[in-house]
Amino acid sequence: MSLSPLIIEDAVRRALSEDLGHGHDITSQSTIPADADGVARIVAREHGVLAGLVPGLTAFTFTDPDFDIQIEKQDGDFLEDGDVIATIEGPARALLTAERTCLNFMTHLSGIATLSAQFVQAIDGTKAKIACTRKTLPGLRAFQKYAVKVGGGMNHRFGLDDAILIKDNHIALAGGIAAALDAAKNSAGHMVKIEIEVDTLGQLEEVLSHGGADIVMLDNFSNENLKEAVQRIDGALITEASGGVNLGTVRAIAETGVDIISVGALTHSAPALDLGLDIDV
Amino acid sequence: MSLSPLIIEDAVRRALSEDLGHGHDITSQSTIPADADGVARIVAREHGVLAGLVPGLTAFTFTDPDFDIQIEKQDGDFLEDGDVIATIEGPARALLTAERTCLNFMTHLSGIATLSAQFVQAIDGTKAKIACTRKTLPGLRAFQKYAVKVGGGMNHRFGLDDAILIKDNHIALAGGIAAALDAAKNSAGHMVKIEIEVDTLGQLEEVLSHGGADIVMLDNFSNENLKEAVQRIDGALITEASGGVNLGTVRAIAETGVDIISVGALTHSAPALDLGLDIDV
Amino acid sequence: MSLSPLIIEDAVRRALSEDLGHGHDITSQSTIPADADGVARIVAREHGVLAGLVPGLTAFTFTDPDFDIQIEKQDGDFLEDGDVIATIEGPARALLTAERTCLNFMTHLSGIATLSAQFVQAIDGTKAKIACTRKTLPGLRAFQKYAVKVGGGMNHRFGLDDAILIKDNHIALAGGIAAALDAAKNSAGHMVKIEIEVDTLGQLEEVLSHGGADIVMLDNFSNENLKEAVQRIDGALITEASGGVNLGTVRAIAETGVDIISVGALTHSAPALDLGLDIDV
Amino acid sequence: MSLSPLIIEDAVRRALSEDLGHGHDITSQSTIPADADGVARIVAREHGVLAGLVPGLTAFTFTDPDFDIQIEKQDGDFLEDGDVIATIEGPARALLTAERTCLNFMTHLSGIATLSAQFVQAIDGTKAKIACTRKTLPGLRAFQKYAVKVGGGMNHRFGLDDAILIKDNHIALAGGIAAALDAAKNSAGHMVKIEIEVDTLGQLEEVLSHGGADIVMLDNFSNENLKEAVQRIDGALITEASGGVNLGTVRAIAETGVDIISVGALTHSAPALDLGLDIDV
Amino acid sequence: MSLSPLIIEDAVRRALSEDLGHGHDITSQSTIPADADGVARIVAREHGVLAGLVPGLTAFTFTDPDFDIQIEKQDGDFLEDGDVIATIEGPARALLTAERTCLNFMTHLSGIATLSAQFVQAIDGTKAKIACTRKTLPGLRAFQKYAVKVGGGMNHRFGLDDAILIKDNHIALAGGIAAALDAAKNSAGHMVKIEIEVDTLGQLEEVLSHGGADIVMLDNFSNENLKEAVQRIDGALITEASGGVNLGTVRAIAETGVDIISVGALTHSAPALDLGLDIDV
Amino acid sequence: MSLSPLIIEDAVRRALSEDLGHGHDITSQSTIPADADGVARIVAREHGVLAGLVPGLTAFTFTDPDFDIQIEKQDGDFLEDGDVIATIEGPARALLTAERTCLNFMTHLSGIATLSAQFVQAIDGTKAKIACTRKTLPGLRAFQKYAVKVGGGMNHRFGLDDAILIKDNHIALAGGIAAALDAAKNSAGHMVKIEIEVDTLGQLEEVLSHGGADIVMLDNFSNENLKEAVQRIDGALITEASGGVNLGTVRAIAETGVDIISVGALTHSAPALDLGLDIDV
Repeated sequence: MSLSPLIIEDAVRRALSEDLGHGHDITSQSTIPADADGVARIVAREHGVLAGLVPGLTAFTFTDPDFDIQIEKQDGDFLEDGDVIATIEGPARALLTAERTCLNFMTHLSGIATLSAQFVQAIDGTKAKIACTRKTLPGLRAFQKYAVKVGGGMNHRFGLDDAILIKDNHIALAGGIAAALDAAKNSAGHMVKIEIEVDTLGQLEEVLSHGGADIVMLDNFSNENLKEAVQRIDGALITEASGGVNLGTVRAIAETGVDIISVGALTHSAPALDLGLDIDV
Repeated sequence: MSLSPLIIEDAVRRALSEDLGHGHDITSQSTIPADADGVARIVAREHGVLAGLVPGLTAFTFTDPDFDIQIEKQDGDFLEDGDVIATIEGPARALLTAERTCLNFMTHLSGIATLSAQFVQAIDGTKAKIACTRKTLPGLRAFQKYAVKVGGGMNHRFGLDDAILIKDNHIALAGGIAAALDAAKNSAGHMVKIEIEVDTLGQLEEVLSHGGADIVMLDNFSNENLKEAVQRIDGALITEASGGVNLGTVRAIAETGVDIISVGALTHSAPALDLGLDIDV
Repeated sequence: MSLSPLIIEDAVRRALSEDLGHGHDITSQSTIPADADGVARIVAREHGVLAGLVPGLTAFTFTDPDFDIQIEKQDGDFLEDGDVIATIEGPARALLTAERTCLNFMTHLSGIATLSAQFVQAIDGTKAKIACTRKTLPGLRAFQKYAVKVGGGMNHRFGLDDAILIKDNHIALAGGIAAALDAAKNSAGHMVKIEIEVDTLGQLEEVLSHGGADIVMLDNFSNENLKEAVQRIDGALITEASGGVNLGTVRAIAETGVDIISVGALTHSAPALDLGLDIDV
Repeated sequence: MSLSPLIIEDAVRRALSEDLGHGHDITSQSTIPADADGVARIVAREHGVLAGLVPGLTAFTFTDPDFDIQIEKQDGDFLEDGDVIATIEGPARALLTAERTCLNFMTHLSGIATLSAQFVQAIDGTKAKIACTRKTLPGLRAFQKYAVKVGGGMNHRFGLDDAILIKDNHIALAGGIAAALDAAKNSAGHMVKIEIEVDTLGQLEEVLSHGGADIVMLDNFSNENLKEAVQRIDGALITEASGGVNLGTVRAIAETGVDIISVGALTHSAPALDLGLDIDV
Repeated sequence: MSLSPLIIEDAVRRALSEDLGHGHDITSQSTIPADADGVARIVAREHGVLAGLVPGLTAFTFTDPDFDIQIEKQDGDFLEDGDVIATIEGPARALLTAERTCLNFMTHLSGIATLSAQFVQAIDGTKAKIACTRKTLPGLRAFQKYAVKVGGGMNHRFGLDDAILIKDNHIALAGGIAAALDAAKNSAGHMVKIEIEVDTLGQLEEVLSHGGADIVMLDNFSNENLKEAVQRIDGALITEASGGVNLGTVRAIAETGVDIISVGALTHSAPALDLGLDIDV
Repeated sequence: MSLSPLIIEDAVRRALSEDLGHGHDITSQSTIPADADGVARIVAREHGVLAGLVPGLTAFTFTDPDFDIQIEKQDGDFLEDGDVIATIEGPARALLTAERTCLNFMTHLSGIATLSAQFVQAIDGTKAKIACTRKTLPGLRAFQKYAVKVGGGMNHRFGLDDAILIKDNHIALAGGIAAALDAAKNSAGHMVKIEIEVDTLGQLEEVLSHGGADIVMLDNFSNENLKEAVQRIDGALITEASGGVNLGTVRAIAETGVDIISVGALTHSAPALDLGLDIDV
């Protein structure tokens, strides 16, 4: 799966402009001869999963169209410390101007892909899948969700518009689970899935008996209750566990038999993967 | 220090649009009566430093201009688990539509402010200051740098345009330290500071003997070398230590006597601070 | 259901700018005294269903914030010839400047709502629902889909991103129905519905025997074949009829028992509803 | 006459982004191999006049720069059912991603060109010309006016800024025909034409005796009155008939001798021309 | 005549963002207490004609919505040294942040209005009018043309789209004057005026004998030739003199009897009018 | 030093769109055959310094990508009347469409570079440097500051964000010179320079005795006082003279020994340099 070039180009243009501020890289312009060329290698400084190659490289081509780029690794590849991801050859000023914007995309998105892969690895052998949430950083959602997928995770809703997720407050305001499900069913088109959050096994019973949901989110359930819920549902709905998920707890949650485990930290708290640019001059 | 409303409004508009996708919150629109009102409290679920109150609240006012908002905490305030940050009263549909965008700004920026405060606290009593870098997330630099400052940190360059930072590659391409400093001095306006990176004590000597720099970045120096460098410089230049800084190493670095310690992790790897929205319906 | 103010404001700003070109209404500015006031009534000149009231009125408030607006009809209301939709009182120059932009939104969207209502009326008493398609006019999709809903229709996919619709070409390129369904299932998140197009009863059998689809689009089926398909499917999948649908054929199609009938003409060929602005000066 | 590439590119970028929503075509990405190629032919499914070739094809080149495109028909060409308009060869995923955006431009604009050509044909042999109005769809005016011209029609004003059209309300607010004409004349630059609307033969006399107008719009005149007005004016002003124009009435109106007949339906109510994409895979 | 608020707001937002760069006024934020208020008076430091009041004041209201503004002079008013144009009371930080953006609009536009008024004054008593050209500064055309009008001048074409101006190169490429006029006449709508440039009296004869033009531009004619041309034309066309016009030559040109004198310098070379901001703190 | 292509492309796109208005050059489209080619030479019509070559030429390449461009002069080159700057060969329609936008950039920026060079020349042999200010035209600051540098001048602050300049009003609001300097020092990062304006020799003593400033602006000092101030400062601070600077006064000011002389007129009042486009058809 790949992002549209339109979205990538818009974000890279915005990021370069943010770094250029009033319009020029005063260090490179003053210290580097206009006709100097250089060769840069993007290298991994720790192991992890690569994501963000295309936006990263676009930072170079938007700064100067004349770069000669050799790609060595693709998004989704596992990186070892020292691996060369790509080699970029061309005007030295532009190399240094684009460096930080390139790395800011790649280190962040690779950080997300790497953390996602760690969660996926942690539940290896269970039937559960790791999903991201809408707890993303402003302006970066499409990129972050893409990186989760690159890391082996699954995408939950992309926004408020593409699926229905009825939470506790919606239920309260709608006048109860049955009323909320009916209202959603009535309004949703046939291409829209409906998920509903429940906080107790009692609520789960209401959902099951009323019908109309495709997925049930079991929010902050203990592992025992998760297990009981999964047995009670018995495949009638897709099950999603959420709340209190981290690398220490995720395997036990997966072993309760839930289908999906959603993890906000994938997109709101993933540390950057350490990548750098080595330049030969 | 506060961000311009123009920058805040543009970012919040973009973030809301990202969440709304094709243009509506199908869950709230279908399950909540159009005339229902609600009261929401933004609450801390762990302790930390608040940052991002204004963009967070703007998510509500951009979704519906009729909210009645009571502010209880300001950016920079220390939060305890359970503290109420603000109370928002108004149309229930809009409350739920804006919730996630609000929290995405506030949890991320408060995460940065909190991490910054931890670094500042770790070097308490030394004369050093904690500074952020240009290792920021694409599109969020102004917000992230603001949050560092809210947490007690200091801002380094905002971009490639507002100060000169001569790094190893610039030196090599310029033909050495003296040539790079001369070129920079020659081109820079009188309002621009010049910093130069050195990797060895030998390079430092060159910088000192040639003159022309305002700040020297001591990159990946051992603490012994840092100490020796500080003594050798003796106040002639501002000193900045960079490389290998974390909460475990930062105090010893500060105790070498450097003026500034720059920390990329403040903006590229700060975990979100846990904040939530409690809604009474 | 209502559109986000962000989407409405952006579109109205764009439409007014399009009409103002180099920046002013030279007729009103030259012929009308700067301090003249006026009262305008938006009136129906034929019967139909109102849609687009908010973007229409926003054209006035964006031209001058001081208008006093009285709303008489809401989106979804049935209009008779002569009905007053809203009364707008304020600066006469701005009234005439905003008039055409207001009407261009309201006549087009009301035209779509009216045509949608005619299709819905034509199948009254059957269990089928009328849905729109992605055959929309560039830049107006969110508004057009909203108008279909106002007219009693249902929304299909909003874009390429929010649901999977496997068409004949996808099937061919994927290597057959089974391969396409497996690939889609494998890639889609749990919040994404999968629809597949079939052109023959034979293909339908493959879909049913393989599983994995939520909806089946019966494309250009004769009414006999539609009926047979519906019986064969027997509720296992949602059924959608498409192709050759118009006001003359739609009832017979609905009576075959399909769940959904999708109609491209709702958004690509709806004639405008005749509305006008009567001004008292 | 052709539209500026800047306007075309902006509109196509916007339309593709509208269809891609959160950023990807999940069906093509999941079901079609990344390296599959395909050949698509844009074909006419009914006869009409082609318009919108360039924006339509730009949808493909903006999705993937590597398409090989063969153009068979040009804007303004008359199409028969089955005619191939262009052949597009390249990456299969991108072919299917861009298909709908391409067709949405071409079917809408060809619909307008075709309807325009029908009106032009209907008055063949008279000296009248068919003109469009400002009753266009928001955001599409430049494209729609271009399509009218492709169909043989003529463009009226493009906006409020490029010519003066004094309507009944302007007259009333200005204090009468003479005052309105004087004010317009006084304010308008020498490059601006002045048109004035009259509703009666009496008003026409005022316009003629006062002078200062270049064109007179005879609004909702009966054909007898139109004829009388044309004789009375006798070439002193350009004459434009408006109101109640359709394919059934237009010829009789043209035969009254008016110069211009303006038709709002060309741009607010033209049905799409049926075009499709045949793909060989 | 006034500019649309949409155009003003967009330009002011852009100008403020340009001045704020990475997003804040570091001087005002650091030196002025957050709760300090101030009163500023915009004053004339030389005499001239005011233009640009609205964009200038918008710089304040976009920086802080809480300003209390008293307007003393209007666009078009003649200013004496020391005149107070407006008084602005409110938050001191925002006063100083917006100051320069306000003045940059007002001093530039007042400079244009003042220069325009000088040209108008210079030909007082003749029947000629002073017009601007398309020789404007990128991004500022609508504002500059507005300022010309405020100063008593007249607007020529606003762009390439709103009138036809056939220059020497068009004539050559079209195959001569007659061919160019025919082609233009054939393509132009009835709302479009046609001007043609001639460089000799011989060319003028061709224009007159062929017909089809509304205005003739007499380019770089000597005053004798202008006089002869005016007599020869005798009111059949509007006459425009262009080339070599300055405050020293304009009166003699006007006295040749031409209708319009176009002056590029009004918009490409007008010096700023000296205005300042006096602040009481 | 060169501007980022991102900034240039955005400004040129905006300028072309401004000139194209509703989207087409009606003169060129109607009078010039679609397949006609032409050759244009950009030529100097008076002597001066070239600036703005790249944005100027971009106007052509954005109108048609197929131009063949030969560059004869570079930014910073001194032009004599008649010098050919560049030759552009390609589609004749596009040549004429882009002509004015190209020249509007180049004549304005060359005008600034030429005026800057005149100021630099006027102080030749002194140690002073000429600097521009923030008195720039809205939306053109980066271009104007670039042109000043091309002309041999120096850039002052680019905006409110990249350096601190404490003026009289800041001092008053901060509670005096010492308080203002302390506040600025306290808030500014280590990469930010601090300048303070003084109006008297007495204020200068306060600045010197308190410390904390890098630059002092001597505002509206007499030349005697400038000389005394320079001696008193004796290299402890960079000195900048401002106020009342013109080509007649600048040399005497420079001879007082100040380091920097700032001149608002460079960017707010530079007349255009006369350049033209000669076309062979």
